[in-house]
Amino acid sequence: MRTLYHFPLHPPSRMARIALAEKKLKVRELVVNPWQLEPEFTALTAEAMPPVLIDLTQHGTLTISGARAITEYANDGSTRNPLLSDDSFERAEARRICAWFAERFTAEVDAYILSEKVERAVLSQTQYDIGPADPKILREGRVYLAEHLTYLTSLLEKRDWLAGRRYSLGDIAAAAHLSCLDFLGEIHWREYPILKMWYQKIKSRPAFRPVLGDRQPGLRAPRHYTDLDF
Amino acid sequence: MRTLYHFPLHPPSRMARIALAEKKLKVRELVVNPWQLEPEFTALTAEAMPPVLIDLTQHGTLTISGARAITEYANDGSTRNPLLSDDSFERAEARRICAWFAERFTAEVDAYILSEKVERAVLSQTQYDIGPADPKILREGRVYLAEHLTYLTSLLEKRDWLAGRRYSLGDIAAAAHLSCLDFLGEIHWREYPILKMWYQKIKSRPAFRPVLGDRQPGLRAPRHYTDLDF
Repeated sequence: MRTLYHFPLHPPSRMARIALAEKKLKVRELVVNPWQLEPEFTALTAEAMPPVLIDLTQHGTLTISGARAITEYANDGSTRNPLLSDDSFERAEARRICAWFAERFTAEVDAYILSEKVERAVLSQTQYDIGPADPKILREGRVYLAEHLTYLTSLLEKRDWLAGRRYSLGDIAAAAHLSCLDFLGEIHWREYPILKMWYQKIKSRPAFRPVLGDRQPGLRAPRHYTDLDF
Repeated sequence: MRTLYHFPLHPPSRMARIALAEKKLKVRELVVNPWQLEPEFTALTAEAMPPVLIDLTQHGTLTISGARAITEYANDGSTRNPLLSDDSFERAEARRICAWFAERFTAEVDAYILSEKVERAVLSQTQYDIGPADPKILREGRVYLAEHLTYLTSLLEKRDWLAGRRYSLGDIAAAAHLSCLDFLGEIHWREYPILKMWYQKIKSRPAFRPVLGDRQPGLRAPRHYTDLDF
Protein backbone atom coordinates (compact mmCIF):
# COMPACT_ATOMS: atom_id res chain seq x y z
CA MET A 1 0.00 0.00 0.00
CA ARG A 2 1.33 3.40 -0.99
CA THR A 3 0.24 6.87 0.05
CA LEU A 4 1.44 10.07 -1.59
CA TYR A 5 1.04 13.40 0.17
CA HIS A 6 0.97 16.14 -2.44
CA PHE A 7 -0.33 19.58 -3.35
CA PRO A 8 -1.96 19.91 -6.80
CA LEU A 9 -0.35 23.14 -8.08
CA HIS A 10 3.13 22.24 -6.82
CA PRO A 11 5.62 21.12 -9.49
CA PRO A 12 7.63 18.67 -7.30
CA SER A 13 4.35 17.04 -6.20
CA ARG A 14 3.25 16.72 -9.83
CA MET A 15 6.60 15.16 -10.76
CA ALA A 16 6.06 12.48 -8.14
CA ARG A 17 2.46 11.81 -9.23
CA ILE A 18 3.33 11.54 -12.92
CA ALA A 19 6.36 9.28 -12.32
CA LEU A 20 4.38 6.92 -10.05
CA ALA A 21 1.58 6.77 -12.63
CA GLU A 22 4.02 6.08 -15.50
CA LYS A 23 5.37 3.13 -13.52
CA LYS A 24 1.77 1.98 -12.97
CA LEU A 25 2.22 1.98 -9.20
CA LYS A 26 -1.06 2.13 -7.30
CA VAL A 27 -1.04 5.10 -4.94
CA ARG A 28 -3.60 6.65 -2.63
CA GLU A 29 -3.25 10.44 -2.97
CA LEU A 30 -3.76 12.80 -0.03
CA VAL A 31 -3.71 16.56 -0.56
CA VAL A 32 -1.77 18.71 1.93
CA ASN A 33 -1.86 22.51 2.04
CA PRO A 34 1.76 23.79 2.21
CA TRP A 35 0.55 27.00 3.89
CA GLN A 36 -1.32 25.16 6.62
CA LEU A 37 0.50 21.93 7.31
CA GLU A 38 -0.92 19.50 9.88
CA PRO A 39 1.47 18.35 12.62
CA GLU A 40 0.89 14.70 11.59
CA PHE A 41 2.32 15.57 8.19
CA THR A 42 5.27 17.69 9.32
CA ALA A 43 6.28 14.93 11.73
CA LEU A 44 6.80 12.53 8.83
CA THR A 45 10.00 14.04 7.38
CA ALA A 46 12.70 16.62 8.00
CA GLU A 47 11.67 18.47 4.84
CA ALA A 48 8.10 18.90 6.16
CA MET A 49 7.02 19.62 2.58
CA PRO A 50 5.20 17.59 -0.07
CA PRO A 51 5.71 15.35 -1.93
CA VAL A 52 6.13 12.52 0.59
CA LEU A 53 5.57 8.88 -0.33
CA ILE A 54 4.79 6.27 2.31
CA ASP A 55 5.32 2.75 1.03
CA LEU A 56 4.32 -0.21 3.20
CA THR A 57 6.60 -2.95 1.87
CA GLN A 58 7.34 -6.43 3.13
CA HIS A 59 10.55 -5.00 4.63
CA GLY A 60 8.72 -2.31 6.61
CA THR A 61 7.34 1.17 6.10
CA LEU A 62 9.45 3.40 3.86
CA THR A 63 9.04 7.17 4.00
CA ILE A 64 10.48 8.82 0.90
CA SER A 65 10.71 12.57 0.74
CA GLY A 66 11.04 14.89 -2.24
CA ALA A 67 10.55 14.63 -5.99
CA ARG A 68 14.12 13.61 -6.67
CA ALA A 69 14.08 10.63 -4.30
CA ILE A 70 10.51 9.55 -5.15
CA THR A 71 10.94 9.62 -8.93
CA GLU A 72 14.20 7.64 -8.85
CA TYR A 73 12.66 5.24 -6.31
CA ALA A 74 9.67 4.68 -8.59
CA ASN A 75 12.00 4.04 -11.50
CA ASP A 76 14.30 1.71 -9.54
CA GLY A 77 11.41 -0.48 -8.43
CA SER A 78 10.94 -2.34 -11.72
CA THR A 79 12.31 -2.45 -15.24
CA ARG A 80 8.91 -1.91 -16.95
CA ASN A 81 8.26 1.57 -18.37
CA PRO A 82 11.76 2.85 -17.58
CA LEU A 83 11.97 6.59 -16.89
CA LEU A 84 15.70 6.73 -17.59
CA SER A 85 17.34 5.57 -20.82
CA ASP A 86 19.89 2.76 -21.14
CA ASP A 87 22.13 5.29 -22.82
CA SER A 88 24.42 6.91 -20.25
CA PHE A 89 24.42 10.32 -21.94
CA GLU A 90 20.61 10.43 -22.14
CA ARG A 91 20.42 9.38 -18.49
CA ALA A 92 22.79 12.22 -17.54
CA GLU A 93 20.77 14.66 -19.65
CA ALA A 94 17.53 13.65 -17.92
CA ARG A 95 19.10 14.25 -14.50
CA ARG A 96 20.63 17.53 -15.63
CA ILE A 97 17.19 18.73 -16.77
CA CYS A 98 15.65 17.65 -13.43
CA ALA A 99 18.29 19.70 -11.60
CA TRP A 100 17.71 22.62 -13.97
CA PHE A 101 14.02 22.68 -13.04
CA ALA A 102 14.57 22.01 -9.32
CA GLU A 103 17.16 24.76 -8.99
CA ARG A 104 17.15 27.34 -11.75
CA PHE A 105 13.55 27.25 -13.02
CA THR A 106 12.19 27.11 -9.46
CA ALA A 107 14.25 30.15 -8.41
CA GLU A 108 13.70 32.21 -11.56
CA VAL A 109 10.12 31.40 -12.56
CA ASP A 110 8.15 29.48 -9.91
CA ALA A 111 9.38 31.73 -7.08
CA TYR A 112 7.90 34.69 -8.92
CA ILE A 113 4.81 33.51 -10.78
CA LEU A 114 3.61 30.39 -8.96
CA SER A 115 4.26 31.63 -5.43
CA GLU A 116 2.72 34.97 -6.25
CA LYS A 117 -0.48 33.56 -7.76
CA VAL A 118 -1.03 30.26 -5.94
CA GLU A 119 -0.10 31.36 -2.44
CA ARG A 120 -2.46 34.34 -2.77
CA ALA A 121 -5.26 32.16 -4.12
CA VAL A 122 -4.89 29.69 -1.24
CA LEU A 123 -4.73 32.46 1.35
CA SER A 124 -7.70 34.28 -0.24
CA GLN A 125 -9.80 31.33 0.95
CA THR A 126 -8.77 32.07 4.54
CA GLN A 127 -8.70 34.99 6.95
CA TYR A 128 -5.13 35.76 5.77
CA ASP A 129 -6.18 37.17 2.37
CA ILE A 130 -3.20 39.25 1.15
CA GLY A 131 -4.80 40.78 -1.96
CA PRO A 132 -3.99 40.41 -5.67
CA ALA A 133 -0.66 39.39 -7.22
CA ASP A 134 2.03 42.06 -7.69
CA PRO A 135 2.35 42.78 -11.45
CA LYS A 136 6.01 43.82 -11.09
CA ILE A 137 6.94 40.45 -9.59
CA LEU A 138 4.93 38.58 -12.24
CA ARG A 139 6.64 40.57 -15.01
CA GLU A 140 10.08 39.60 -13.73
CA GLY A 141 9.15 35.90 -13.68
CA ARG A 142 7.72 36.12 -17.20
CA VAL A 143 10.98 37.45 -18.64
CA TYR A 144 12.81 34.39 -17.29
CA LEU A 145 9.97 32.08 -18.36
CA ALA A 146 10.24 33.25 -21.99
CA GLU A 147 14.00 32.62 -21.91
CA HIS A 148 13.54 29.11 -20.53
CA LEU A 149 10.79 28.17 -22.99
CA THR A 150 13.11 29.23 -25.82
CA TYR A 151 15.84 27.06 -24.34
CA LEU A 152 13.53 24.02 -24.11
CA THR A 153 12.54 24.63 -27.74
CA SER A 154 16.21 24.56 -28.75
CA LEU A 155 16.55 21.11 -27.16
CA LEU A 156 13.44 19.79 -28.94
CA GLU A 157 14.68 21.02 -32.31
CA LYS A 158 17.31 18.25 -32.18
CA ARG A 159 15.53 15.59 -30.11
CA ASP A 160 12.24 13.69 -29.87
CA TRP A 161 12.09 14.20 -26.10
CA LEU A 162 13.95 16.62 -23.85
CA ALA A 163 16.80 14.29 -22.90
CA GLY A 164 17.06 12.47 -26.25
CA ARG A 165 15.26 9.68 -28.07
CA ARG A 166 13.34 8.43 -25.04
CA TYR A 167 10.66 9.90 -22.78
CA SER A 168 12.34 10.37 -19.38
CA LEU A 169 12.40 12.01 -15.96
CA GLY A 170 13.53 15.16 -17.80
CA ASP A 171 10.17 15.33 -19.61
CA ILE A 172 8.33 14.62 -16.37
CA ALA A 173 10.13 17.50 -14.62
CA ALA A 174 9.30 19.87 -17.47
CA ALA A 175 5.67 18.67 -17.70
CA ALA A 176 5.22 19.15 -13.94
CA HIS A 177 6.45 22.74 -13.97
CA LEU A 178 4.92 23.86 -17.28
CA SER A 179 1.50 22.34 -16.53
CA CYS A 180 1.26 24.39 -13.31
CA LEU A 181 2.09 27.55 -15.26
CA ASP A 182 -0.37 26.56 -17.99
CA PHE A 183 -3.08 26.20 -15.33
CA LEU A 184 -2.40 29.86 -14.53
CA GLY A 185 -2.63 30.85 -18.22
CA GLU A 186 1.05 31.82 -18.26
CA ILE A 187 2.16 29.94 -21.39
CA HIS A 188 1.44 31.36 -24.82
CA TRP A 189 1.76 28.12 -26.75
CA ARG A 190 1.29 29.79 -30.14
CA GLU A 191 4.72 31.41 -29.70
CA TYR A 192 6.38 28.03 -29.05
CA PRO A 193 5.09 25.63 -31.73
CA ILE A 194 7.78 22.96 -31.19
CA LEU A 195 7.24 22.96 -27.44
CA LYS A 196 3.49 22.82 -28.04
CA MET A 197 3.87 19.63 -30.09
CA TRP A 198 5.88 18.10 -27.25
CA TYR A 199 3.19 19.15 -24.73
CA GLN A 200 0.49 17.59 -26.92
CA LYS A 201 2.36 14.26 -26.70
CA ILE A 202 2.68 14.74 -22.92
CA LYS A 203 -1.04 15.49 -22.55
CA SER A 204 -2.00 12.35 -24.43
CA ARG A 205 -0.13 10.10 -21.96
CA PRO A 206 -2.58 8.36 -19.59
CA ALA A 207 -0.17 8.95 -16.66
CA PHE A 208 -0.46 12.69 -17.18
CA ARG A 209 -4.27 12.88 -17.32
CA PRO A 210 -4.93 13.10 -13.55
CA VAL A 211 -3.09 16.45 -13.22
CA LEU A 212 -5.41 17.86 -15.90
CA GLY A 213 -8.29 17.21 -13.51
CA ASP A 214 -6.80 19.32 -10.70
CA ARG A 215 -8.84 22.22 -9.34
CA GLN A 216 -7.83 25.06 -7.03
CA PRO A 217 -10.42 27.23 -5.24
CA GLY A 218 -9.75 30.88 -6.04
CA LEU A 219 -8.18 30.09 -9.44
CA ARG A 220 -9.74 29.09 -12.73
CA ALA A 221 -7.66 27.39 -15.43
CA PRO A 222 -8.03 28.62 -19.04
CA ARG A 223 -10.28 26.42 -21.19
CA HIS A 224 -7.34 25.00 -23.18
CA TYR A 225 -5.76 23.60 -19.99
CA THR A 226 -7.63 20.29 -20.17
CA ASP A 227 -7.92 20.07 -24.01
CA LEU A 228 -5.69 17.41 -25.52
CA ASP A 229 -5.95 19.25 -28.83
CA PHE A 230 -5.34 22.88 -27.83
CA MET B 1 40.03 10.83 -21.53
CA ARG B 2 38.02 12.88 -19.09
CA THR B 3 38.20 16.58 -18.21
CA LEU B 4 36.40 18.17 -15.29
CA TYR B 5 35.88 21.93 -15.17
CA HIS B 6 35.47 22.96 -11.54
CA PHE B 7 35.97 25.70 -8.99
CA PRO B 8 37.71 24.68 -5.72
CA LEU B 9 35.47 26.37 -3.12
CA HIS B 10 32.23 25.42 -4.88
CA PRO B 11 30.23 22.59 -3.26
CA PRO B 12 28.72 21.13 -6.48
CA SER B 13 32.21 21.08 -8.04
CA ARG B 14 33.59 19.29 -4.98
CA MET B 15 30.76 16.74 -5.14
CA ALA B 16 31.73 15.89 -8.70
CA ARG B 17 35.46 15.65 -7.85
CA ILE B 18 34.91 13.40 -4.83
CA ALA B 19 32.48 11.08 -6.65
CA LEU B 20 34.80 10.69 -9.65
CA ALA B 21 37.72 9.97 -7.31
CA GLU B 22 35.69 7.40 -5.31
CA LYS B 23 34.95 5.56 -8.56
CA LYS B 24 38.69 5.72 -9.38
CA LEU B 25 38.01 7.46 -12.69
CA LYS B 26 41.03 9.30 -14.08
CA VAL B 27 40.17 12.94 -14.66
CA ARG B 28 42.15 15.98 -15.76
CA GLU B 29 40.95 18.90 -13.63
CA LEU B 30 40.70 22.45 -14.98
CA VAL B 31 39.79 25.34 -12.69
CA VAL B 32 37.26 27.91 -13.91
CA ASN B 33 36.43 31.17 -12.15
CA PRO B 34 32.60 31.48 -11.89
CA TRP B 35 32.91 35.28 -11.70
CA GLN B 36 35.00 35.52 -14.86
CA LEU B 37 33.95 32.70 -17.15
CA GLU B 38 35.75 32.27 -20.47
CA PRO B 39 33.53 32.09 -23.60
CA GLU B 40 35.01 28.66 -24.44
CA PHE B 41 33.63 27.38 -21.16
CA THR B 42 30.19 29.02 -21.28
CA ALA B 43 29.70 27.66 -24.81
CA LEU B 44 29.95 24.10 -23.47
CA THR B 45 26.59 23.90 -21.67
CA ALA B 46 23.32 25.74 -21.10
CA GLU B 47 24.10 25.99 -17.38
CA ALA B 48 27.37 27.83 -18.11
CA MET B 49 28.47 26.92 -14.58
CA PRO B 50 30.88 24.35 -13.16
CA PRO B 51 31.02 21.43 -12.67
CA VAL B 52 31.12 20.19 -16.27
CA LEU B 53 32.59 16.82 -17.22
CA ILE B 54 33.79 16.12 -20.76
CA ASP B 55 34.17 12.40 -21.40
CA LEU B 56 35.72 11.22 -24.67
CA THR B 57 34.24 7.73 -25.01
CA GLN B 58 34.26 5.25 -27.85
CA HIS B 59 30.71 6.42 -28.67
CA GLY B 60 31.73 10.08 -28.96
CA THR B 61 32.26 13.08 -26.71
CA LEU B 62 29.84 13.36 -23.79
CA THR B 63 29.35 16.70 -22.04
CA ILE B 64 27.76 16.21 -18.62
CA SER B 65 26.66 19.24 -16.66
CA GLY B 66 25.98 19.66 -12.95
CA ALA B 67 26.75 17.70 -9.79
CA ARG B 68 23.57 15.65 -9.92
CA ALA B 69 24.15 14.35 -13.44
CA ILE B 70 27.92 13.87 -13.02
CA THR B 71 27.74 11.96 -9.72
CA GLU B 72 25.04 9.58 -10.94
CA TYR B 73 26.94 9.17 -14.25
CA ALA B 74 30.11 8.28 -12.35
CA ASN B 75 28.18 5.77 -10.27
CA ASP B 76 26.36 4.23 -13.26
CA GLY B 77 29.63 3.64 -15.12
CA SER B 78 30.71 0.58 -13.14
CA THR B 79 29.65 -1.58 -10.20
CA ARG B 80 32.92 -1.13 -8.26
CA ASN B 81 32.82 1.21 -5.28
CA PRO B 82 29.08 1.85 -5.55
CA LEU B 83 27.96 5.28 -4.33
CA LEU B 84 24.34 4.17 -3.88
CA SER B 85 23.23 1.24 -1.75
CA ASP B 86 21.43 -1.89 -3.01
CA ASP B 87 18.76 -1.10 -0.45
CA SER B 88 16.00 0.98 -2.03
CA PHE B 89 15.31 3.02 1.11
CA GLU B 90 19.00 3.90 1.57
CA ARG B 91 19.19 4.84 -2.10
CA ALA B 92 16.18 7.15 -1.68
CA GLU B 93 17.68 8.63 1.47
CA ALA B 94 20.96 9.39 -0.33
CA ARG B 95 19.08 11.20 -3.10
CA ARG B 96 16.90 13.06 -0.60
CA ILE B 97 20.04 14.29 1.19
CA CYS B 98 21.57 15.39 -2.15
CA ALA B 99 18.40 17.40 -2.89
CA TRP B 100 18.43 18.84 0.64
CA PHE B 101 21.94 20.18 0.10
CA ALA B 102 21.34 21.33 -3.51
CA GLU B 103 18.16 23.19 -2.61
CA ARG B 104 17.74 23.99 1.08
CA PHE B 105 21.34 24.14 2.36
CA THR B 106 22.45 26.09 -0.72
CA ALA B 107 19.69 28.67 -0.28
CA GLU B 108 19.93 28.98 3.51
CA VAL B 109 23.66 28.64 4.20
CA ASP B 110 25.85 28.80 1.06
CA ALA B 111 23.95 31.79 -0.35
CA TYR B 112 24.82 33.72 2.79
CA ILE B 113 28.21 32.54 4.00
CA LEU B 114 29.98 31.09 0.95
CA SER B 115 28.84 33.72 -1.54
CA GLU B 116 29.61 36.49 0.92
CA LYS B 117 33.14 35.30 1.72
CA VAL B 118 34.32 33.55 -1.45
CA GLU B 119 32.94 35.99 -4.02
CA ARG B 120 34.54 38.86 -2.11
CA ALA B 121 37.86 37.05 -1.86
CA VAL B 122 37.91 36.29 -5.58
CA LEU B 123 36.94 39.86 -6.49
CA SER B 124 39.49 41.29 -4.04
CA GLN B 125 42.14 39.90 -6.38
CA THR B 126 40.74 42.05 -9.22
CA GLN B 127 39.84 45.67 -9.86
CA TYR B 128 36.27 44.90 -8.67
CA ASP B 129 37.18 44.66 -4.96
CA ILE B 130 33.89 45.11 -3.05
CA GLY B 131 35.28 45.23 0.50
CA PRO B 132 34.84 42.91 3.48
CA ALA B 133 31.93 40.50 4.13
CA ASP B 134 28.74 41.89 5.68
CA PRO B 135 28.53 40.59 9.29
CA LYS B 136 24.69 40.78 9.27
CA ILE B 137 24.47 38.47 6.26
CA LEU B 138 27.03 36.07 7.76
CA ARG B 139 25.09 35.98 11.04
CA GLU B 140 21.89 34.99 9.25
CA GLY B 141 23.62 32.12 7.45
CA ARG B 142 25.21 30.92 10.69
CA VAL B 143 21.83 30.55 12.40
CA TYR B 144 20.67 28.22 9.61
CA LEU B 145 24.03 26.42 9.59
CA ALA B 146 23.73 25.55 13.28
CA GLU B 147 20.23 24.17 12.67
CA HIS B 148 21.42 22.02 9.78
CA LEU B 149 24.46 20.69 11.64
CA THR B 150 22.13 19.63 14.47
CA TYR B 151 19.88 17.89 11.94
CA LEU B 152 22.83 16.00 10.39
CA THR B 153 23.87 14.96 13.90
CA SER B 154 20.39 13.55 14.52
CA LEU B 155 20.77 11.34 11.43
CA LEU B 156 24.21 10.10 12.52
CA GLU B 157 22.93 9.18 15.98
CA LYS B 158 21.04 6.30 14.34
CA ARG B 159 23.24 5.51 11.35
CA ASP B 160 26.86 4.80 10.41
CA TRP B 161 26.63 7.12 7.39
CA LEU B 162 24.12 9.83 6.50
CA ALA B 163 21.84 7.65 4.37
CA GLY B 164 22.23 4.42 6.36
CA ARG B 165 24.76 1.61 6.68
CA ARG B 166 26.71 2.51 3.55
CA TYR B 167 28.82 5.48 2.49
CA SER B 168 26.86 7.14 -0.34
CA LEU B 169 26.21 10.18 -2.52
CA GLY B 170 24.50 11.66 0.56
CA ASP B 171 27.82 11.70 2.42
CA ILE B 172 29.57 13.12 -0.63
CA ALA B 173 27.03 15.98 -0.85
CA ALA B 174 27.48 16.76 2.85
CA ALA B 175 31.28 16.50 2.67
CA ALA B 176 31.37 18.84 -0.33
CA HIS B 177 29.33 21.56 1.39
CA LEU B 178 30.78 21.23 4.90
CA SER B 179 34.39 21.11 3.72
CA CYS B 180 33.95 24.47 1.94
CA LEU B 181 32.53 25.99 5.14
CA ASP B 182 35.33 24.39 7.17
CA PHE B 183 37.86 26.02 4.83
CA LEU B 184 36.31 29.33 5.91
CA GLY B 185 36.54 28.40 9.60
CA GLU B 186 32.74 28.33 9.92
CA ILE B 187 32.31 24.96 11.65
CA HIS B 188 32.90 24.63 15.38
CA TRP B 189 33.48 20.90 15.43
CA ARG B 190 33.75 20.75 19.21
CA GLU B 191 30.02 21.51 19.42
CA TYR B 192 29.15 18.60 17.10
CA PRO B 193 31.14 15.58 18.32
CA ILE B 194 29.11 12.98 16.37
CA LEU B 195 29.38 14.96 13.16
CA LYS B 196 33.09 15.42 13.85
CA MET B 197 33.60 11.64 14.02
CA TRP B 198 31.82 11.29 10.68
CA TYR B 199 34.03 14.03 9.18
CA GLN B 200 37.15 12.28 10.47
CA LYS B 201 36.11 9.16 8.54
CA ILE B 202 35.44 11.35 5.47
CA LYS B 203 38.85 13.02 5.75
CA SER B 204 40.64 9.70 5.88
CA ARG B 205 39.19 8.56 2.54
CA PRO B 206 41.82 8.85 -0.22
CA ALA B 207 39.17 10.21 -2.64
CA PHE B 208 38.60 13.18 -0.33
CA ARG B 209 42.26 14.16 0.10
CA PRO B 210 42.60 16.34 -3.03
CA VAL B 211 40.02 18.88 -1.77
CA LEU B 212 42.11 19.30 1.39
CA GLY B 213 44.91 20.60 -0.83
CA ASP B 214 42.79 23.40 -2.32
CA ARG B 215 43.99 26.98 -1.98
CA GLN B 216 42.22 30.25 -2.65
CA PRO B 217 44.11 33.56 -2.98
CA GLY B 218 42.65 36.07 -0.53
CA LEU B 219 41.53 33.37 1.93
CA ARG B 220 43.48 31.29 4.40
CA ALA B 221 42.04 28.05 5.79
CA PRO B 222 42.35 27.40 9.55
CA ARG B 223 45.18 25.03 10.47
CA HIS B 224 42.80 22.16 11.32
CA TYR B 225 41.38 22.17 7.78
CA THR B 226 43.99 19.76 6.44
CA ASP B 227 44.55 17.78 9.66
CA LEU B 228 43.12 14.28 9.56
CA ASP B 229 43.17 14.27 13.35
CA PHE B 230 41.66 17.64 14.23
